[in-house]
Amino acid sequence: MAKTAIKPTRADNYPEWYQQVVKAADMAEESPVRGCYVIKPWGYSIWENIQRLLDARFKETGHVNAYFPLLIPKSYLEREAEHVEGFAKECAVVTHHRLQESPDGGLEPAGKLEEPYIIRPTSETIIGEVYSKWVQSYRDLPILVNQWANVMRWEMRTRVFLRTAEFLWQEGHTCHAKEQEAIDETLLILNLYAKFAEEVLAIPVIKGLKTADERFPGAVDTYTIEAMMQDRKALQAGTSHFLGQNFSKPANIKFLDEDNVEKFVWTSSWGVSTRLIGALIMTHGDDDGLIVPPRLAPRQVILNPIWRSDDDKSKVLEHCDALAAEIREQRYADERISVFVDKRDIRGGEKNWEHVKKGVPIRLEIGPRDIEKGSVCMRRRDQPSNEKAFVDRGEFIATVSETLASIQSNLYDRATAFRDEHTRNVDSLEDFRAMFTPKNAKKPEIHGGFALAHWTESEEAKAELKKLKVTARCIPHEGEAEPGTCIFSGKPSERRVVFAKAY
Amino acid sequence: MAKTAIKPTRADNYPEWYQQVVKAADMAEESPVRGCYVIKPWGYSIWENIQRLLDARFKETGHVNAYFPLLIPKSYLEREAEHVEGFAKECAVVTHHRLQESPDGGLEPAGKLEEPYIIRPTSETIIGEVYSKWVQSYRDLPILVNQWANVMRWEMRTRVFLRTAEFLWQEGHTCHAKEQEAIDETLLILNLYAKFAEEVLAIPVIKGLKTADERFPGAVDTYTIEAMMQDRKALQAGTSHFLGQNFSKPANIKFLDEDNVEKFVWTSSWGVSTRLIGALIMTHGDDDGLIVPPRLAPRQVILNPIWRSDDDKSKVLEHCDALAAEIREQRYADERISVFVDKRDIRGGEKNWEHVKKGVPIRLEIGPRDIEKGSVCMRRRDQPSNEKAFVDRGEFIATVSETLASIQSNLYDRATAFRDEHTRNVDSLEDFRAMFTPKNAKKPEIHGGFALAHWTESEEAKAELKKLKVTARCIPHEGEAEPGTCIFSGKPSERRVVFAKAY
Repeated sequence: MAKTAIKPTRADNYPEWYQQVVKAADMAEESPVRGCYVIKPWGYSIWENIQRLLDARFKETGHVNAYFPLLIPKSYLEREAEHVEGFAKECAVVTHHRLQESPDGGLEPAGKLEEPYIIRPTSETIIGEVYSKWVQSYRDLPILVNQWANVMRWEMRTRVFLRTAEFLWQEGHTCHAKEQEAIDETLLILNLYAKFAEEVLAIPVIKGLKTADERFPGAVDTYTIEAMMQDRKALQAGTSHFLGQNFSKPANIKFLDEDNVEKFVWTSSWGVSTRLIGALIMTHGDDDGLIVPPRLAPRQVILNPIWRSDDDKSKVLEHCDALAAEIREQRYADERISVFVDKRDIRGGEKNWEHVKKGVPIRLEIGPRDIEKGSVCMRRRDQPSNEKAFVDRGEFIATVSETLASIQSNLYDRATAFRDEHTRNVDSLEDFRAMFTPKNAKKPEIHGGFALAHWTESEEAKAELKKLKVTARCIPHEGEAEPGTCIFSGKPSERRVVFAKAY
Repeated sequence: MAKTAIKPTRADNYPEWYQQVVKAADMAEESPVRGCYVIKPWGYSIWENIQRLLDARFKETGHVNAYFPLLIPKSYLEREAEHVEGFAKECAVVTHHRLQESPDGGLEPAGKLEEPYIIRPTSETIIGEVYSKWVQSYRDLPILVNQWANVMRWEMRTRVFLRTAEFLWQEGHTCHAKEQEAIDETLLILNLYAKFAEEVLAIPVIKGLKTADERFPGAVDTYTIEAMMQDRKALQAGTSHFLGQNFSKPANIKFLDEDNVEKFVWTSSWGVSTRLIGALIMTHGDDDGLIVPPRLAPRQVILNPIWRSDDDKSKVLEHCDALAAEIREQRYADERISVFVDKRDIRGGEKNWEHVKKGVPIRLEIGPRDIEKGSVCMRRRDQPSNEKAFVDRGEFIATVSETLASIQSNLYDRATAFRDEHTRNVDSLEDFRAMFTPKNAKKPEIHGGFALAHWTESEEAKAELKKLKVTARCIPHEGEAEPGTCIFSGKPSERRVVFAKAY
């Protein structure tokens, strides 16, 4: 068996493999604050690219950014019954505004607040209150605003990037004069998220509507993009909510319409978070570590100069700097290619593995002999770590953009093939149970993945799903409705729903 | 007197003028959360440009970004005596992690935390704790990390952008093996801030060292950039702190040095915040509203199409779109010029004033006659609102980049002339008192501004400054040391210090 950088491997212990990839790629680590993680520079630079590229797409579609308060008065949260039910159980409560000396010589909270605040778990209620002042007339609509922010949910069981007490995200909050406009906006963003996931993250997703049980607290409809990880579990990668007038009524967001009648606005909200980094790791990572799709990679090409003598060193470094400058002149996906020359005075092999584990798309190794031959030794991160190709220097530069594009599409195709391979129609409860029962893991070819099954809302379905720890991921948008029979209740069903175990 | 858009004018009531500019330019507003403001899209887009351009300069100088927790365990704050003294009196304290139903039917805090957390007012202590794990050997140094984040200080008297309970900022935190390296880093950032203020914000600043009383709580030395607002008060626009080993010792950030001896690292920290937007408003704004320097303007050129008939409308809009596309092809300061065609179907005059108040550098008005004549009607925001020039269309495009550069340098020159006019050597306590006593406001030519006076630390100086509500802004870096006599104590002094009333 080939040597791998990550122990355990995915096959041996997937959850532990995930933790080890995060560590090996130096992306994040536990912090001294319960449930909160430090996002380290490599992890954060991937988030910066997600932000930058997603933000550009928001702006292209007419959205602007703003910033709203971190704290939410307790009474605002109480305004929407399902919403408070969903968030009150796990939230950080601010009760005091200073510390004073305590009898034991330390500090204790003082200056008790009249009304406690909670740290935003999401901002519908506070932003709704602000919008009630912004909106007076139909001329003030639509409001298409997004916020990049930190939020906090006091989760008991945390996992880096996937479920953490504090996390970074964007939350869009829009107001519309007409119901249909708000629905259109919700779907516009759903499609924007799906395209972003597929084109930039190289993650294929299924778009669809959440079933009632899985809706955002307070939403009329929640739409989702669902991805399949390599352990065949589903990961909800982004959601877009049509909120109807559920938030505009309690927040009193009213406007005088063209017909001179006062009406409540229709709102939407939508978000993606640092969870996308978890999705990235689990979609593309292999037993050597992270693989970052070229469109998102903070460093798309690294140059690893190899030297033995001091004479060699200056010659090799000079050559690498010149090559890097030429590569930087090339463009991929409308941007200059990002190159890094790793000049650290440590063993070449050590440097090479570091970039493997961090998932840099293209690695070049360049020593005195390569310079003589006018070639570069190239390794692609989407190929096994021991594969390499000697490429003519000019040829490499002329094709580097194509090579990056090929890695990007290769990653996407691979993930799509994997997802499709583990997605199947399931027409009996027996097959459904077999698919999601751990003891069947010995037959991995039918274990886990996405089950497309007929379903109607029923107590039988609910009980069975709970027992199997499986959830309805979404009612998919694609594919034609095809009547059938609910595998749980035997009742007639209009179309199949996607089921999976999920993060 | 010419009509002005902002009431009151600067001369009538400067503090109220400031509030009205923020409102008229639609930059921010009070929120329902005590002391917290909503940053509205126009204000936020200016912050986005500050972030983007400053971040690029951090990266060029070898810094990377990361993200650390929002919450700080109370015990961490207690580790550095001056630091806790500086921040404990005004901080948001998190004491509980959920809400539960209270006897009166509402919600009350529950799940009391063993140790309270405070929302970061600054992150030296939490980041220090994290760094203590990152640093083992001299090979791990330097650490050059920055964070873009929200912070909270429970200020009692707030003023939008200048002093708010929550604000946005960046905070750099670095670790070094040698004392001199940490000092060099502190000064590198001070110079970076000064160049950024001058080149991008068009705000001239004085660089210098804070006197002991004005230091950051826990710092060995605090360096500052100080700007003069149009009411002649000083505004501290950015600070860079050499922290010595004051934070590395309590956080136990140790490393094994090349000589095999275990040592504590030397640290620095530095930050600028949304306060820069306040500085921008008060440096350049006039009685018509905000003026945004071209380098920072989210929209550098606006096109205001003028039409009377529907026939005209389509013709004029088509012409404007074509012109906008041509302008966009031009570059200013290495970026494409940002143009916006304001197609809203409201009066041209109303649109014009909106862009005046928002401070857009160049406004073009284009009607059917301008199209016929092949010209544009141009107004520059650095010139009086009633001034306009008819410029040949081709000529305008060919020179738009120069025009923006001229506005940028004009704003900088104007601010510098103003600052210099109100900066003077003061060699007697009488003159010092005259300069800073409000009743002398009738002689505005000698009222307020920067006083360069000889000073030594003394009780007399402290008492006098307190009475006058004046502070030492900094011991300036520029200008030669010139011995003299302290105007407060009569003791010998080595060099002049900058004094002013300040924000």
